[in-house]
Amino acid sequence: MFQKTTYLARRKELKEKIGKGLILFFGNDESSMNFSDNTYRFRQDSTFLYYFGIQHPGLAAVIDIDNDREIIFGNDYTIDDIVWMGPQPTVAERAERCGVKQVNELKKLHEIVAVATQKKQKIHFLPLYRPENKIKLFELIDVAPKDVAITYSLDLVKAVVSQREFKSDEEIEQLNLAVNVSVDMHVAAMKFARPGMTEAEVAGEIHKVALAAGGDIAFPIIATINGQTLHNHYHGNTIKQGDLLLVDAGYENQMCYAGDLSSTIPVSKKFTTEQKEIYEITLAAHQAAVDALGLNTPFKNAHIAACTTVFNGLKEMGFTKGNAMDAFDAGAHALFFPCGTGHMMGLDVHDMEDLGEVWVGYNGQPKSTQFGLKSLRLAKPLKAGHVFTIEPGIYFIPELIDLWRGQNKFNDFIHWEKVDSYRNFGGIRNEEDFVMTLEGAKLLGKPKPKTVAEVEAMR
Amino acid sequence: MFQKTTYLARRKELKEKIGKGLILFFGNDESSMNFSDNTYRFRQDSTFLYYFGIQHPGLAAVIDIDNDREIIFGNDYTIDDIVWMGPQPTVAERAERCGVKQVNELKKLHEIVAVATQKKQKIHFLPLYRPENKIKLFELIDVAPKDVAITYSLDLVKAVVSQREFKSDEEIEQLNLAVNVSVDMHVAAMKFARPGMTEAEVAGEIHKVALAAGGDIAFPIIATINGQTLHNHYHGNTIKQGDLLLVDAGYENQMCYAGDLSSTIPVSKKFTTEQKEIYEITLAAHQAAVDALGLNTPFKNAHIAACTTVFNGLKEMGFTKGNAMDAFDAGAHALFFPCGTGHMMGLDVHDMEDLGEVWVGYNGQPKSTQFGLKSLRLAKPLKAGHVFTIEPGIYFIPELIDLWRGQNKFNDFIHWEKVDSYRNFGGIRNEEDFVMTLEGAKLLGKPKPKTVAEVEAMR
Repeated sequence: MFQKTTYLARRKELKEKIGKGLILFFGNDESSMNFSDNTYRFRQDSTFLYYFGIQHPGLAAVIDIDNDREIIFGNDYTIDDIVWMGPQPTVAERAERCGVKQVNELKKLHEIVAVATQKKQKIHFLPLYRPENKIKLFELIDVAPKDVAITYSLDLVKAVVSQREFKSDEEIEQLNLAVNVSVDMHVAAMKFARPGMTEAEVAGEIHKVALAAGGDIAFPIIATINGQTLHNHYHGNTIKQGDLLLVDAGYENQMCYAGDLSSTIPVSKKFTTEQKEIYEITLAAHQAAVDALGLNTPFKNAHIAACTTVFNGLKEMGFTKGNAMDAFDAGAHALFFPCGTGHMMGLDVHDMEDLGEVWVGYNGQPKSTQFGLKSLRLAKPLKAGHVFTIEPGIYFIPELIDLWRGQNKFNDFIHWEKVDSYRNFGGIRNEEDFVMTLEGAKLLGKPKPKTVAEVEAMR
Repeated sequence: MFQKTTYLARRKELKEKIGKGLILFFGNDESSMNFSDNTYRFRQDSTFLYYFGIQHPGLAAVIDIDNDREIIFGNDYTIDDIVWMGPQPTVAERAERCGVKQVNELKKLHEIVAVATQKKQKIHFLPLYRPENKIKLFELIDVAPKDVAITYSLDLVKAVVSQREFKSDEEIEQLNLAVNVSVDMHVAAMKFARPGMTEAEVAGEIHKVALAAGGDIAFPIIATINGQTLHNHYHGNTIKQGDLLLVDAGYENQMCYAGDLSSTIPVSKKFTTEQKEIYEITLAAHQAAVDALGLNTPFKNAHIAACTTVFNGLKEMGFTKGNAMDAFDAGAHALFFPCGTGHMMGLDVHDMEDLGEVWVGYNGQPKSTQFGLKSLRLAKPLKAGHVFTIEPGIYFIPELIDLWRGQNKFNDFIHWEKVDSYRNFGGIRNEEDFVMTLEGAKLLGKPKPKTVAEVEAMR
């Protein structure tokens, strides 16, 4: 974890922003796979990490602004626990590391919250994404699980976003480390993948690099010959000569900072001519998005740059027609690029997604409801300290092609026959991570092989 | 999944055993890591798999015995879902594969259950280990999450255990496949581990083998130089010449059947003399446990055989004194072997642990509360089709040594000075998987390197 002063300063700022009341934080518990004690790897809640830094299950915390106290709640271990899990620091020792002086048993949280309720203190809590924490809230203050989404504290959400969105130098350092290992994961895949392997074998090689580095994957690995399916975690196919292999994978380091990169490689030694042509358009879109990044410039501009570059590149190849900006406004580009150009990144790979994209990516402005644009997670002006991805791609999605063509949709923008001839092409995406600085956007981590020549040199 | 007839037969038997009422099954949902959409790998509930075979999140099922109908509840996909996740079978198609003819949207489950409640049908449900399913139950029939443990159907638990505990030939085939890949994982670790690596690098290699085979790990990997800590998932240490490396890892195959093996290897090319001496005692205990296995013979006999063999082996080395059976009755052996000799295995690595060990491992008889023996998960007479592990070990746990020595505990059985001289020895365990047949116990899967010579040949 960071120095104690970091957590003290973060909590001090939060208290000032919230002003009064009691802030209730739930750490995450262990998550059971198929029975209570068989658990997935533990992942602490990112906001809990941000303010307390403790990577340990079964904790809660209170910042009682009105009574000027901070308490961490958790239960210490018995000798039985130590036999099974080894010697462990006490809750008090863990709390001390983040500058919290008061600790108590978990059951005491009920008393503290009951008194606060009685005294009509405002109790702030975040929207909860973990069901175990919804149950805890229900047992503490009788908010039904289905009502969490309408009773959480919007003031708290805004305050947390306003702090977590700006990455400090020590956070940028962690993110650079996470991205560097993410690059290693992609380079490993590029060197390892051979015709005749399964996607699962490639995914295993990628996952191994993350584990060997001491952390884990930041999100489920995509390693697929069906790159047109945007979140495809099926790894059962055998990869063959002529296929494209799309990899989307990132490292979460020991401090829980994420990297998030995508690559697309030919399963053969070289791209085919057709693959290379589409690949080059995605690279042009990538560069157009990067070129559109600027301090105080809306990220939406980068998205528009990427979408129109995709559209114009495909126009030269005969897939599309008409004006690119008109196509963007109509949403026609989304046939090929139905998602967003990037998202915030930090302790979460989609940073703070559980707090609401409208706050994290849109400064509270409503999001578009148009297919394609509605999937853009980040649109607001970029400030120094914002960390985000750039990841335009081109996808030929047979189901979407058939649906829209059948609806006679976008006939003014799309040459359907040409598109249909590419229906089995697959998908291509590259993805890199950037930080906005006072001097403009900077690439995080070491560069990843990206050009056709760089990628083919890895094969 | 298996043939439709398998699931039809299993449900028919269950209906006959339960007789009347309505049985409510919850499939598992996706489990969120650090925000809703960033999930761990999906793992279906094992009982849901057993009766319905569908590996897909967001499902529930009802077997309404009184009205002779079976219904699977789930929501089909929209075009947005297909863009993100690829083409998917409908709920009806999935249901058809397990012989369920009726399907409905998830929200209809409320109506069905409401009518059943109104008509005073008995509603059977299992103890729930997933918090999302506790919430669903609460919203369906107003059982508070904390009350699930006192309101679940014991009749249903007993019926499910009475079916799942006997593995059919097709299940044994799956278990053999799962154990074979588990052996590959251990052999990979034995060949891969070298002084100077981190435990995490070894764990990564093991995990890779599981992923490459198309499944995943059946439980969190243990790969530790602190084998005396029984469930040690910390992988941050560097492994050094002279260390023992204890690996406990198993494969879960695509059908979700588990393997569960342990190995202990010298980080150097050879065991030291001291390591070899203790290692040989664990092998003798292992063999004694296997020799004590018999059709209709209580598994507890195998545990007693292992514990007394450990005690007597250590007596020859000067660690213990007195009669081994007296030591076992007193619990003194548990200083070195504080856990059980084995557990049921199947769709869960600790099979049906969520249904209660007293039913799964003890035929409803109470478990011992004595330190050591209380951790024995299986004691009942073995029947043909029972699948279980054999995993005695010897552990030198500094915290336990200091605690008991300080309490002057077991001075009649333990030579504390000798024990203390081994306080940094670590731990040793081998583990294999067996099935009881009418002809006696048989090893599952291919043999794993286990003797000193076999293990050293791998290094």
